[in-house]
Amino acid sequence: MRRNTHFSQVASRYLFQEIRERKRDFLQQYPHAELISLSIGDTTEPITPHICQGLTSISSSLGSEAGYMGYGPEQGILELRQAIATTLYHDRVDADDVFVSDGAKCDIGRLQTLFGPETSVALQDPAYPAYLDTSIIHRGRDSIILLPCTPENHFFPDLALAEKADVLFLCSPNNPTGALFSHEQLATIVQFAKDRKKIIVFDTAYSLYIQGDGPRSIYEIAGAKEVAIEIGSFSKIAGFSGVRLGWTVVPKELHYHSGEPVRADWMRLITTFYNGSSIISQHGGIAALQPAGMSEMRELVSFYLESTGLLLEAFKQLGYEVYGGIHAPYLWVRLQGKSSWDAFDELLRTAHVLTTPGIGFGESGDGFLRISGFGKRATILEAIGRLHRYRQ
Amino acid sequence: MRRNTHFSQVASRYLFQEIRERKRDFLQQYPHAELISLSIGDTTEPITPHICQGLTSISSSLGSEAGYMGYGPEQGILELRQAIATTLYHDRVDADDVFVSDGAKCDIGRLQTLFGPETSVALQDPAYPAYLDTSIIHRGRDSIILLPCTPENHFFPDLALAEKADVLFLCSPNNPTGALFSHEQLATIVQFAKDRKKIIVFDTAYSLYIQGDGPRSIYEIAGAKEVAIEIGSFSKIAGFSGVRLGWTVVPKELHYHSGEPVRADWMRLITTFYNGSSIISQHGGIAALQPAGMSEMRELVSFYLESTGLLLEAFKQLGYEVYGGIHAPYLWVRLQGKSSWDAFDELLRTAHVLTTPGIGFGESGDGFLRISGFGKRATILEAIGRLHRYRQ
Repeated sequence: MRRNTHFSQVASRYLFQEIRERKRDFLQQYPHAELISLSIGDTTEPITPHICQGLTSISSSLGSEAGYMGYGPEQGILELRQAIATTLYHDRVDADDVFVSDGAKCDIGRLQTLFGPETSVALQDPAYPAYLDTSIIHRGRDSIILLPCTPENHFFPDLALAEKADVLFLCSPNNPTGALFSHEQLATIVQFAKDRKKIIVFDTAYSLYIQGDGPRSIYEIAGAKEVAIEIGSFSKIAGFSGVRLGWTVVPKELHYHSGEPVRADWMRLITTFYNGSSIISQHGGIAALQPAGMSEMRELVSFYLESTGLLLEAFKQLGYEVYGGIHAPYLWVRLQGKSSWDAFDELLRTAHVLTTPGIGFGESGDGFLRISGFGKRATILEAIGRLHRYRQ
Repeated sequence: MRRNTHFSQVASRYLFQEIRERKRDFLQQYPHAELISLSIGDTTEPITPHICQGLTSISSSLGSEAGYMGYGPEQGILELRQAIATTLYHDRVDADDVFVSDGAKCDIGRLQTLFGPETSVALQDPAYPAYLDTSIIHRGRDSIILLPCTPENHFFPDLALAEKADVLFLCSPNNPTGALFSHEQLATIVQFAKDRKKIIVFDTAYSLYIQGDGPRSIYEIAGAKEVAIEIGSFSKIAGFSGVRLGWTVVPKELHYHSGEPVRADWMRLITTFYNGSSIISQHGGIAALQPAGMSEMRELVSFYLESTGLLLEAFKQLGYEVYGGIHAPYLWVRLQGKSSWDAFDELLRTAHVLTTPGIGFGESGDGFLRISGFGKRATILEAIGRLHRYRQ
């Protein structure tokens, strides 16, 4: 059996696995260091009461004759799909076109299988590393077009570079830069995809973090259903990073060149490669989208954005050029001459603070660090104190 | 955007989706029919008390400061991996080589991504349809070799047919035929794979159903770690078909031709395409593998096997040629001249009993029905009564 050669084309470790290994090495050398992580975007606050009640009550009811359930529909429980369509999309999408997943990352991988081996994809650079890595593992490096998004172009890609791509992966509010596409920018992208018969995969994992009027979904743009798939996630809004729950919208209006509906192939793929999200997580999602759950999620998001705001102030006071931090729980900090990994190592060594090197998100991310606003408030304040001391 | 042509090579619906649609059509025509399902292998008994307690207590503890957890390791919680290695494999495998999944079907799909676009696979015919369908969607029909397993060859494939395959997907106890490989048969297969440098993917989703001395795992065969990946599942042993939990073992002893360890690529894939199984399901798995959970699972398995035994007797009394039903919760019933779908439709129409047409598992399955022993006892007895009445 020969090795799948695509694996030799990706970095040997996924970004956050690499950071974990460096952390482990550091702690072996300095076992008493009290590390603070502003690195991986992982939620730290307990699951809120109403949502937790949803998880607990389904768990307990699975133990009763009346409450037991086996396989759910692969597409997800109808009640949850309807709640997503109504509460999060204001009925702009149809519950029929909502597919419940175990998280955005997993559906990014499955979308690669949907698109198949012959597809060329365009990605924002920097971007959440799963887009690039799953693309390489599926088709090798040659099929990938990178679209630099930097302060110099106001984080808006030069679409001319994407002429040859079949699929555009886009994320707004962006991880890692925190940039939000405006309605006008998103309309430009949708028109580009329409004119050139491309498919957009639009990742909105952070849409509940948006302040002001959005756009929160690509479907706010007229005609977007004919060109766009949208990915969403409960991880960062309900603290479900460990519970695992997300969704993907594949509108029935989206067709291939040849006229076949994309949704039919996606349904085939989901029923074949997947067996539905955990029934427990799905009932947690149903609770999250009830009024009490929604208001808990809004409060949780405000808390993380407040922390992000404190970090934003601190980095500005320290004289850094900082982006993001308004519509997303991430800051994108320019390093004035240092490479990302050098800055990562330096902050780890001097302040015992873990960050994420910008280059981990793509070449255009070198010279930046991503700072995550997820964390206990006391930890965030302690990190800010250390940063001030270390800069003096 | 062009359509991925592989989708035009699979049947338009996954087998169990097709059965659901036929059931729906039938119920629209006969809304008062009281259908009984002996079809999809879906558990019906409540989650047992100790295991349910594991699910409930983690769900509730996620709502507390002390108990909250975000992302777990993509590979799975160490405690669960250790319990799988020790309790299910008697330390025959290393916890390091156990990867927790959200179910066997999902890992079958991810293994296809691991093997990549150039691989040729050999499958038992009949077999669990996910092997064939995920293979077609990944690489098209041409890359697939079918290994007929029928009463005529005692359900043991002619390995000479698999000479050109890189990977062999095998399942024992088999779904749908219920056939169990003996130690000698499995040793023959392992030797074949060794001699020809092939990889075996061995699916043991039903291993707890085995009566007598097995083999319960391919790793009971000396040297199997150098050639085999093994898939396992909590679905049918803990009633977790809706909770979602399984595992895959990729031993560090397994290498590609060129010497690279398969495990390293699998780790890269799991960290890139997956974000870990739900923390709640994993804690349910930990409870399931504690002594109280193990004894509950054994009792549950006995219950389903008893039901299967009742069905086995009934079909024999009715004069059918029947296979399986001893080491697996499935009967494989020969139809004496009828096609699978004709028999399916006839049983649905006359006895209002849903079954699974054998041809849904592959061409060699035509002329058979798979009868599932999962169900409430009263339902199984009612189905048996109807079968007797219908046959008269």
